[in-house]
Amino acid sequence: MTAARSAPHTWLHLPANHPFGIAHLPYGAFAPPGDPRTRVGVRIGDAVLDLVGAAVQLDPRLVPLIEGDNLDRLLAAGPETWAATRAAVAGWLTDGEARPIVEAHLFELAAVRLELPFTVADYVDFYSSEHHARNLGRILRPGQEELPPNWLHLPVGYHGRAGTVVVSGTDVTRPSGQRRTADGEVVFGPTTRLDIEAEVGYVVGVPSPLGSPVPLGAFADHVFGICLVNDWSARDIQGWEYQPLGPFLGKSFATSVSAWVTPLAALDAAWVAPPPRDPRPLPYLDDADAAPTGLDLRLKVRLNGHSVARPPFAQMYWTGAQQLAHLTVNGASLRTGDLFASGTVSGPEPGERGSFIELSWNGAEPITLPDGQVRTFLEDGDEVVITATAPAPDGAVIGLGEVRGRIVPAH
Amino acid sequence: MTAARSAPHTWLHLPANHPFGIAHLPYGAFAPPGDPRTRVGVRIGDAVLDLVGAAVQLDPRLVPLIEGDNLDRLLAAGPETWAATRAAVAGWLTDGEARPIVEAHLFELAAVRLELPFTVADYVDFYSSEHHARNLGRILRPGQEELPPNWLHLPVGYHGRAGTVVVSGTDVTRPSGQRRTADGEVVFGPTTRLDIEAEVGYVVGVPSPLGSPVPLGAFADHVFGICLVNDWSARDIQGWEYQPLGPFLGKSFATSVSAWVTPLAALDAAWVAPPPRDPRPLPYLDDADAAPTGLDLRLKVRLNGHSVARPPFAQMYWTGAQQLAHLTVNGASLRTGDLFASGTVSGPEPGERGSFIELSWNGAEPITLPDGQVRTFLEDGDEVVITATAPAPDGAVIGLGEVRGRIVPAH
Repeated sequence: MTAARSAPHTWLHLPANHPFGIAHLPYGAFAPPGDPRTRVGVRIGDAVLDLVGAAVQLDPRLVPLIEGDNLDRLLAAGPETWAATRAAVAGWLTDGEARPIVEAHLFELAAVRLELPFTVADYVDFYSSEHHARNLGRILRPGQEELPPNWLHLPVGYHGRAGTVVVSGTDVTRPSGQRRTADGEVVFGPTTRLDIEAEVGYVVGVPSPLGSPVPLGAFADHVFGICLVNDWSARDIQGWEYQPLGPFLGKSFATSVSAWVTPLAALDAAWVAPPPRDPRPLPYLDDADAAPTGLDLRLKVRLNGHSVARPPFAQMYWTGAQQLAHLTVNGASLRTGDLFASGTVSGPEPGERGSFIELSWNGAEPITLPDGQVRTFLEDGDEVVITATAPAPDGAVIGLGEVRGRIVPAH
Repeated sequence: MTAARSAPHTWLHLPANHPFGIAHLPYGAFAPPGDPRTRVGVRIGDAVLDLVGAAVQLDPRLVPLIEGDNLDRLLAAGPETWAATRAAVAGWLTDGEARPIVEAHLFELAAVRLELPFTVADYVDFYSSEHHARNLGRILRPGQEELPPNWLHLPVGYHGRAGTVVVSGTDVTRPSGQRRTADGEVVFGPTTRLDIEAEVGYVVGVPSPLGSPVPLGAFADHVFGICLVNDWSARDIQGWEYQPLGPFLGKSFATSVSAWVTPLAALDAAWVAPPPRDPRPLPYLDDADAAPTGLDLRLKVRLNGHSVARPPFAQMYWTGAQQLAHLTVNGASLRTGDLFASGTVSGPEPGERGSFIELSWNGAEPITLPDGQVRTFLEDGDEVVITATAPAPDGAVIGLGEVRGRIVPAH
């Protein structure tokens, strides 16, 4: 292994407000330069710590709980190991005696290859922003009720394709499929309405047995952390296929996740009360008397380098804890690596919408970027980057790992 | 290992028309009596052959391609290995010299524990019986078009929950969830409309890369074989939740599959032309000039021992090859262990319907069993068994592995 040489920021010299400072410490899977084997890394500043490499020398009892190609073993190990690992890393990064060993296992971020951080078991996508759901209702069902009748009673969701979840940085090929034209003809070809959905994903660590619902209060016993998600969507394919069984090929070609998973432990200062609900949810979803389960994340969507939206996550109607309680209330089991995403994050303002179908109002209101480019949906060569920040202790702010993807032409 | 003692049927003395005779040879995962480790088994008559145990002595070059807890490695190994393995087993069972070794690795079926035959990667469920889709349209949307506008243009499908696919014989706990009562109240409790869907599942062996559609003609390059599927459904939960993103908790509590996977090689005599399609499908789905991709399977559904339906599979509008071509036409990749199911198999006659919502016409026409029991949907303690037969060479018939499940009360 090669130590990072003259890294501009070491763990001792990071600015207090660095988005990947000591208050953050997210996990990912990486391969060092010249070594094809991936392993668990912890991001600190603009460097990646080889976690097992350091633990072998500094805390060998952790090794069997965290080793492997990716986070799978750490995820399965559960909250005690999660806490012990995080405490150990934080200790190494503040303990001068550990410094030489830690430095020997640090790699420059720019030099490593990042891979999918965990094996995705089942992928579920929710639809939990009221502003997004109302916008879609207005766009797709004008003159009708904005929200479906069930929407205020349960977090609407569906299963997506786990096998096509890809890590940030993976190019996305424009998918082809069936669509119906405005004059009713059914045609085949590359999608003409390629979109994004800016979302937050929850990563399940500890499984649950079949037949045992996970109540609201057990959220942190199962969920390890969060990532950012871009649920790429081909609106024309989706619009033609989705009745009556929901989205399928309009979504299944790719879903991008950030390379870094932020543990819940880094989000202690980010919990906020969710918006009031009316009607009051059924007991298994009622969090009125629980600790706050909303998260004050601020997302940002960039297209070709230009900021196009700043979706606020704190206003999501249904929270991750409610989504997990709903997902399992029928007895469905959880597996290590289950990923469930929030649904598109959109706020009440036009600049807070997390999809182009909303930002361009279904193409009727094109967006002009500062450099004069005009967009409704995505064009070949476009690159979308979603980032987010979260409050950290002492007024600091952390920055979640970005999710980045570039559109390449259809085959 | 213990050899089966005085098994009533050995591979030398099976009747020519035994459903698990030498023309069949399906694969599963089993643990012998007193040994917790599961392994690949081949069913022959009422016995199970420990495949790797026999291969170690009879054909060691096969061992690395087939060893493991279940079929995963064999599935990934591809068509050449599938053919070589099948030929080897058939040879052992007809070769008198191999008999002593084979007998030493045979176990009585009744004495072994059967497990899920493979690790389910993604699970997709289609909706490809025209009779079923029209029945559901008439029941759920009376007075409207029976089929959704897309139905005759593409095989409608959606992703289900891979983590709750269970092996035949696993009890199914009645799920709880939200439903809306006839007078519009939203309530929570055990489902009152628990149903089955009798289906055929296709098991993917060879993966495909992201961005590479699998054309109709490449079906057998990727699909290893078929199993039977019971897609348990809670109709009241499903009816309330499914707009606009499709079925979710109404299905995700359990999906049962048979313990035995029948390789395509055992179905050579079962291929039939699918029904004519109008309109003619788009080119990627057009099988008019291809070899027949329908399968002449005859399903049977038993409730508490009484036959209640005989759904014919040959009349499915969309075939497995078309479903696979559709599933991947947007570039979605395949993984070893992907499972895609046909959707409920229903024929044109009332006694050919593969779900109770059809058999009881949404509860309006209760079924009376020969012993006087009356059913609309399933009651606690009910047991459903789905079986099927397929034509084999020389006028013989094989019988697919059953899928069995019993309803236990909600927690």
